[in-house]
Amino acid sequence: MSSGSGLVPVRPIAVIGGTGPAGMGLALRWARAGENVIIGSREEGRAQKAAAAIQEKAGPHANVTGMENSTACAAADILMLTVPFEGQTALLQQLKFSMTEGSILIDATVPLAASVGGRASRPLGVWQGSAAQQAAELVPKGVSVVAAFHNISADLLYGDAPLDCDVIVCSDDPDAAQLTRELAAKIPGVRAIDGGKLENARIVEQITALLIGLNIRHKGHAGIRITGLPPNAYR
Amino acid sequence: MSSGSGLVPVRPIAVIGGTGPAGMGLALRWARAGENVIIGSREEGRAQKAAAAIQEKAGPHANVTGMENSTACAAADILMLTVPFEGQTALLQQLKFSMTEGSILIDATVPLAASVGGRASRPLGVWQGSAAQQAAELVPKGVSVVAAFHNISADLLYGDAPLDCDVIVCSDDPDAAQLTRELAAKIPGVRAIDGGKLENARIVEQITALLIGLNIRHKGHAGIRITGLPPNAYR
Repeated sequence: MSSGSGLVPVRPIAVIGGTGPAGMGLALRWARAGENVIIGSREEGRAQKAAAAIQEKAGPHANVTGMENSTACAAADILMLTVPFEGQTALLQQLKFSMTEGSILIDATVPLAASVGGRASRPLGVWQGSAAQQAAELVPKGVSVVAAFHNISADLLYGDAPLDCDVIVCSDDPDAAQLTRELAAKIPGVRAIDGGKLENARIVEQITALLIGLNIRHKGHAGIRITGLPPNAYR
Repeated sequence: MSSGSGLVPVRPIAVIGGTGPAGMGLALRWARAGENVIIGSREEGRAQKAAAAIQEKAGPHANVTGMENSTACAAADILMLTVPFEGQTALLQQLKFSMTEGSILIDATVPLAASVGGRASRPLGVWQGSAAQQAAELVPKGVSVVAAFHNISADLLYGDAPLDCDVIVCSDDPDAAQLTRELAAKIPGVRAIDGGKLENARIVEQITALLIGLNIRHKGHAGIRITGLPPNAYR
């Protein structure tokens, strides 16, 4: 599952709903790291426009294309979902017919009250416990869900400076979690941490609401670092 | 509200339920910083024994005494509550008659499933939203509740090395929050951050469950740092 050399075409990562700030930021960082990135959007034209913008920013060696969401989904077996919470369910219901068995869905959805007209600094309660667990209920059998990338500033991601934050990765599939940690560690300045089972996404998602509150209060781009763990806890 | 010079007796901090690791750790750090600390316990003898241990560790200039919880509570107007969640309600119902108007109750209670025989890596839901909001419902009028010190390793606190973590402080009383941030910043290596209203303790408390899970998985003493905020956000 590791990315190949520059000469071998690497398995693509489809960033579904990838025209928003978080999706474009992840796509940019992965494109710079040599990953083959597909931006997915409801409208193919919008996806292509975003892909072109990322391609230009990432440089001539980058490999970024744009496709309609379900086409992007069918073309990749690593799916990165970066949509607002209110769009997650309908999108997954639409895309499940395009997902192939053995695929990995990395979910960064954060259930914020902003989805229902409330504050972005307040989380919503999700019946399943977290947006990631909701996603796990919606994907076809044989697709693994990983929760990650909730606590990383989209603004900083779509920039040039190294990040200064950790990405906590939660999943019930250890291989999918490891692949996701490898992808996270390709972003300069990011350390990936095994956060345990998917149910722990409940807490990781809520941290985003706290960070948004800190950003509003202190005018920053907050992230978190986990301290006090032995070096082998980070990768 | 700032602590005086070494010559003026400073207002005491009563660490209620202070014979556990978190309480003893905070007491030690504050004693070293020149604060006048009272350890509270259900049993006066146990409080005095803990106080003597802290006094010895903190050095001859430290000022640590031990009292029964309600006596400690009546003797101080800064109350630091470090008890397991299952003991919080009964203790506050008992102590409310000893609290004086204008007091500050700093609550570090974390509602963990361990309180009901479950895992310490899983939070419990609290009807009021958080243990801190439950505390706010139980204290007499005129007592301000501040939520803080949830995410700091008790083991590391009761040691000699500087900490490497931030303390997120949540309260509806800005003055009480500021005093608490000042107390947090007296612990070497700790930065205090204004985490906004008391309701945000919901998230800060849950982070502890995540950190406990990380400690179990990675054998560490996890804490958090918030990155990406301007310097004036920390104190």
